[in-house]
Formats: sequence, C-alpha cells, structure tokens
Amino acid sequence: MIITIGRQLCSGGRNIGKKLSEELGIAYYDKELIAIAAKESGLNEKFFEKADERTQKGVSAGLFGSRFQFMGDATIAYGWLSNDTFFKIQSDVIRSLAEKQSCVFIGRCADYILRDRKDCFNLFLSADKEERINKIIESQNVSVEKARDIREDADKKRAAYYNYYTNKTWGAAASYDICINTSLFGVDGTVSLIKEMITKSMTIHKNI
Amino acid sequence: MIITIGRQLCSGGRNIGKKLSEELGIAYYDKELIAIAAKESGLNEKFFEKADERTQKGVSAGLFGSRFQFMGDATIAYGWLSNDTFFKIQSDVIRSLAEKQSCVFIGRCADYILRDRKDCFNLFLSADKEERINKIIESQNVSVEKARDIREDADKKRAAYYNYYTNKTWGAAASYDICINTSLFGVDGTVSLIKEMITKSMTIHKNI
Repeated sequence: MIITIGRQLCSGGRNIGKKLSEELGIAYYDKELIAIAAKESGLNEKFFEKADERTQKGVSAGLFGSRFQFMGDATIAYGWLSNDTFFKIQSDVIRSLAEKQSCVFIGRCADYILRDRKDCFNLFLSADKEERINKIIESQNVSVEKARDIREDADKKRAAYYNYYTNKTWGAAASYDICINTSLFGVDGTVSLIKEMITKSMTIHKNI
Repeated sequence: MIITIGRQLCSGGRNIGKKLSEELGIAYYDKELIAIAAKESGLNEKFFEKADERTQKGVSAGLFGSRFQFMGDATIAYGWLSNDTFFKIQSDVIRSLAEKQSCVFIGRCADYILRDRKDCFNLFLSADKEERINKIIESQNVSVEKARDIREDADKKRAAYYNYYTNKTWGAAASYDICINTSLFGVDGTVSLIKEMITKSMTIHKNI
C-alpha cells in the first residue's frame, strides 16, 4: 500500500503522515528522500536540498555564479546539473522504495511518479488560512504580514514545482483521491479518517 | 446541519446528494432552487434557468437582442435584469431555506452564500476524466470528441461562475472541507464516507 500526501505549508501534513505510517506500521519518507537520493547518486545532499520541491527557476538564482562548488577536497561542477536531473534521481528513488515496501510519501510529486501503480492512495491536505498563518508566526517568530508572505510564497513554489513536473494542478481536487481540510478534524481526527477511507476503498475494490 | 456539494459534471453529485439527503432524512435542493426562486420573486422560471450557474458573460449571448420576452399575455423586460440579480434572489432563497431546516444544496455557491453559518459541511466531488466522458457519451449520445468538449466546457463555466461570485477557486481543495474522487468509492461508498465524516467532525467539535 502506497499513500502519497500533497500538502499546504502548515496543514499538518508531516505530523499526519508520520502518525499514519506509525499506526499502519509502514515506512515514511519526507525529507528522508533527500539523504537517500544523495547517497544513491553519490551527489552532495546540499544540492538536493537546494532543488527540493523547486523548479529550475526557483533555484537558478541560488546556483547562478556558483556552478563550481567547494566540498571538502573536491571542487565539482554541480551547478551544471539541472533540477530536472535531481528530480529524475529522486523519482528513481521513490519508485524503488515503493517497489520494496508499503510507504507514505510526503510531497515531491510522488502521486505522479507512481501513477502507473494501482495501490496508490493520493491525498491532499489543506488547512484554514488563519490557522496556517498563526502556525507560521509561532514556528518562525515573524510578524503577521511576513507570515502571510511566507504562506503565499510556499503555495506558489509548491504549485509551480508540481504543475511543472506533472500534467496536473497542485491543490486541485481533481488531482487527488481525497482532499481534507485538517482544521476541521485535527491531526488525530484526520489520521483516523484516512485509515477509514483506505479500508473502505479496499473493501469496495475487492468487491468489484 | 447543512451540506453543500460542489461537483464536476458527471461526478455523481446529484445522485450522491439525493441519497445522502434521504438517508439523513433532510431536504435536498438542486434544480429545485430555480422553481422556488422564481416563485418567491414572481419572475419566470425560464430566466432563472438561463442564468443558472452562469456568469453574465455566459448568458449575455442568449439574452442579447431579446431583452423583451413574450410570456403569455405579458411582454416583460427581463433582459434588463442582470445575472447578479438572479444570483441575489437565489442567495436569499438558499439562506432562507437553510434557516428553516437541515438540507443538502447542490452547487450554486451555497458554501459561500452560507459562509457565516457554523453548521455547514462543504464538499466537492470529482471523478476520473474517462469515467466522466463515458457518462456524457451515454447520457447525451455524442462522440468521444464532443463529450470531451462538453466536459471541458462545463468545468470552465462552473469555475467562472463560482470564482466570480465567491472569493474562492472552484474545485480547489482549499475551498472545501472535504473533496472526494467518487470513481474510487462509487455512489454508495461516497455516501457512507460522507456520513462517517460528518459524524466524526461533529464528535470532534463537541469535544473541543
């Protein structure tokens, strides 16, 4: 069983995904994918971090002028690798992990990368605007105005990344199996709801 | 309890809403709203039908050149009434019905019209593209190409109408409490899922 979770910033996606994986006894991959992709490819983790959930446009400013990066003894031309390359490496990692075991994947277009599998349950989590802004204020210690900018910017970047690499629309109901406003159910409520949905969808498909 | 259902054409919204209302023993309003709005306002039902879930742009072609409509004995300048007027009348009807009883409302921006109520559960239903196209072919006896156009056109019109009258985005997960791909659960499965969600959301809110 594969569960993919697209999510708005501060919608509780990480906590919900983690709890879900624990209760179902299956693997969980969020930022963990970066370390694995780095290890598999032999490329430095920092470059995957820079490219993480961003399109080329989003990171080119950061990489421009620093195509040659110093890393310990080696000066390597990582700047010449495009984000598409990092995406391709990460996609291979996601596919290979999904083949080995049941897992929860957070973000990174996993729903699209695994689109040919029949055992994927694709979720999207949103939350009320005000709740998200309050969480950003708390966690990043910023003003309301700044928190609003951070929220908007994060949504734009995630949408740009998802829409660029998939032929679907980030956050659009039609791109997922189920979308849930987590403000309505909380972390525990959402986890239990998702578990019920998975059971129901399995029962229905077994009956067909 | 108020349940509002936004839906893609051929996602089963009507059947699901109707069944839900029957099982919960509450009222159901879809096209019924047109007749009620017409009766309440004293205006002819046909004009509400023309304006139904469309923006001014969507109907102006139809009304242009026919501002004076013959209806029995009376020639009346209904063309001069804008779609905003029809929307306003229908909104009043929706608010008044919701005050009197529990109901299910299909489409017509009911989620936005009733946004100040705390007892609304706002759903959006989608379905797989191919399933929707097959349903259109069956129900309207058209070619695949024509069915594709009908689907696309319906989505565009509903989105234009919703986005114009609300400050939200039609079909975007963040505009609703829950979005469900009905292809995964079928009519009965979706109905039973919605009932469970409503119970769960009520329990959670009671516990807070």
